[in-house]
Amino acid sequence: MINTTSTKALLFTLALPLFVQAAEPLPSWNEGPAKKAIIEFVQTVTTPDSKGFVQPAERIAVFDNDGTLWSEQPGYFEELFAFDEIRRMAPQHPEWKDQQPFKAVLDNDHKALAEGGMEGLMKIFMASHAGLTTEEFRSNVQAWLSKARHPTTGKPYTEMVYQPMLEVLDYLREQGFKTWIVSGGDTGFMRVFAEEVYGIPPEQVIGSNFVSRYQYNDGKPTILRTDKIAHNDDGPGKPESIDSIIGRRPILAFGNSDGDQQMLQWTAAGSGPRLMGLVHHTDAKREWAYDRDSKIGRLDKALDEAKQQGWTIVDMTSQWSRIYPSEASAAKQP
Amino acid sequence: MINTTSTKALLFTLALPLFVQAAEPLPSWNEGPAKKAIIEFVQTVTTPDSKGFVQPAERIAVFDNDGTLWSEQPGYFEELFAFDEIRRMAPQHPEWKDQQPFKAVLDNDHKALAEGGMEGLMKIFMASHAGLTTEEFRSNVQAWLSKARHPTTGKPYTEMVYQPMLEVLDYLREQGFKTWIVSGGDTGFMRVFAEEVYGIPPEQVIGSNFVSRYQYNDGKPTILRTDKIAHNDDGPGKPESIDSIIGRRPILAFGNSDGDQQMLQWTAAGSGPRLMGLVHHTDAKREWAYDRDSKIGRLDKALDEAKQQGWTIVDMTSQWSRIYPSEASAAKQP
Repeated sequence: MINTTSTKALLFTLALPLFVQAAEPLPSWNEGPAKKAIIEFVQTVTTPDSKGFVQPAERIAVFDNDGTLWSEQPGYFEELFAFDEIRRMAPQHPEWKDQQPFKAVLDNDHKALAEGGMEGLMKIFMASHAGLTTEEFRSNVQAWLSKARHPTTGKPYTEMVYQPMLEVLDYLREQGFKTWIVSGGDTGFMRVFAEEVYGIPPEQVIGSNFVSRYQYNDGKPTILRTDKIAHNDDGPGKPESIDSIIGRRPILAFGNSDGDQQMLQWTAAGSGPRLMGLVHHTDAKREWAYDRDSKIGRLDKALDEAKQQGWTIVDMTSQWSRIYPSEASAAKQP
Repeated sequence: MINTTSTKALLFTLALPLFVQAAEPLPSWNEGPAKKAIIEFVQTVTTPDSKGFVQPAERIAVFDNDGTLWSEQPGYFEELFAFDEIRRMAPQHPEWKDQQPFKAVLDNDHKALAEGGMEGLMKIFMASHAGLTTEEFRSNVQAWLSKARHPTTGKPYTEMVYQPMLEVLDYLREQGFKTWIVSGGDTGFMRVFAEEVYGIPPEQVIGSNFVSRYQYNDGKPTILRTDKIAHNDDGPGKPESIDSIIGRRPILAFGNSDGDQQMLQWTAAGSGPRLMGLVHHTDAKREWAYDRDSKIGRLDKALDEAKQQGWTIVDMTSQWSRIYPSEASAAKQP
């Protein structure tokens, strides 16, 4: 009863958008070893006849955030948020004017801040990140993101994401992957923008977090962020949280610093095809150039291991034709 | 160019299985208030014109496991696993013959075991659940599930799941929900069977867990389950883990005991349509009957709150036409 010719026509019409979409993945990547490695890997694991075929449910891809999906200079953006929060909250804390490390933030005194070291930084984090409900914190992050601008580019922070990495995320999801963030940043902080900016829903965002406490007052439940750290999602903390929260081993992992080394090792140690990638910040002109000697996003041991193991090192200068979504797409390099 | 009649015929053919599927959801539920509440809720949140429409991404449904998705008598099945593990490991631990609480397990001495209380039980849990890698633990659980049989029914434990709840899980997923387990049980334990038995993938299983530790020896990374408890996913621990791991508030939650009360409160306190359900174990003939005075799965405070708040109480005897998948479907009750 079915007219075969017209049925084929219909099916062709329906299928066409998919073919168009698949025509050129990763348009902001130059033709080079990194793009080639990503596309070949994806084709291997998604081709049903391939020896390396991986069921969609097992196509787990994990990404660090700072320095891998968005910039992290001149300081981690979440740290800049914490400083701005101290300034915003200062009127309610007159004692901060004479109290380090808060005084240093209010006076914009980089030297005193540096002298406060990690201990000082933790106090700033606690004051801005703990002792409030998860909903209040989300609302604070939203308010900040909507008006804060990056100190050197003047861009909203959520526009300082890497266009080539957004394309990797899209490409992987089109090919049946589930994409996750696994980052040292605060889970609640990243969830505020991850869905809109990266297409990654809250339940696929893993980060550092505080012990939370359920409270029930007058029939109204809230969840308090206490000042006790529950998990530091950096270094070995990354494979630990991947195993605890995802419960499957990723087949693709992307990072940019020594804090991602263990996540890449854990990914590499599984059987079958794998892709381990490192974004290498080499582009002082369009972004920043730093690696072994940087305090932020130091890439040293992981770079050595990547070279030894043949992981994919993405030289930002040569492999990316543009950095941020707002840039016009550059002409392809030869 | 397209023959309209034949196209309609094609589309009708393609669409038919969906209509058939949707014709009668929840076949093992009797026509009654519980089935009615579930179907009306799902229709409300999935009907685009409805005032209560909820976007698919926000259709989060959470389920307790023990007593909600599978039976929990005469003891939590994971506890029975722990006892069997002690017996299996005893040859490597000759000292256990004279050491409580292990001696009680080996002698099948219920009185001594009861005397050991929670402290004794924790020692048994630690010996069977900690100090091994996550992969070793998974393999132990797999081996146990494949051969262990329930002491009174003689069934494999994975066949003591509730057919009506499997149908709820399927129905919700067909309607665009993401289904999660949020349970006091060990996350790694439940993940071994949750995907095959419930259709719930590892990354949607939340439970109690131990602090884990990444280890790297001779190029081989492993993740050790230490004997330090990271999270007790019971009572207030449930909304805490929902917020921390899912990062969205559920619109549907199902439990069966006081340990689920806070999860149901947290779900109820969101805006828009909600469904809070409690499986009430009233069927001594087909399953077990217990509530306010039970040591296992005590349902007391949550039952009071459910009655006050109008939550859906599922009276197992009258609402379920069959309990386990292996039973023939019973004739509908009038």
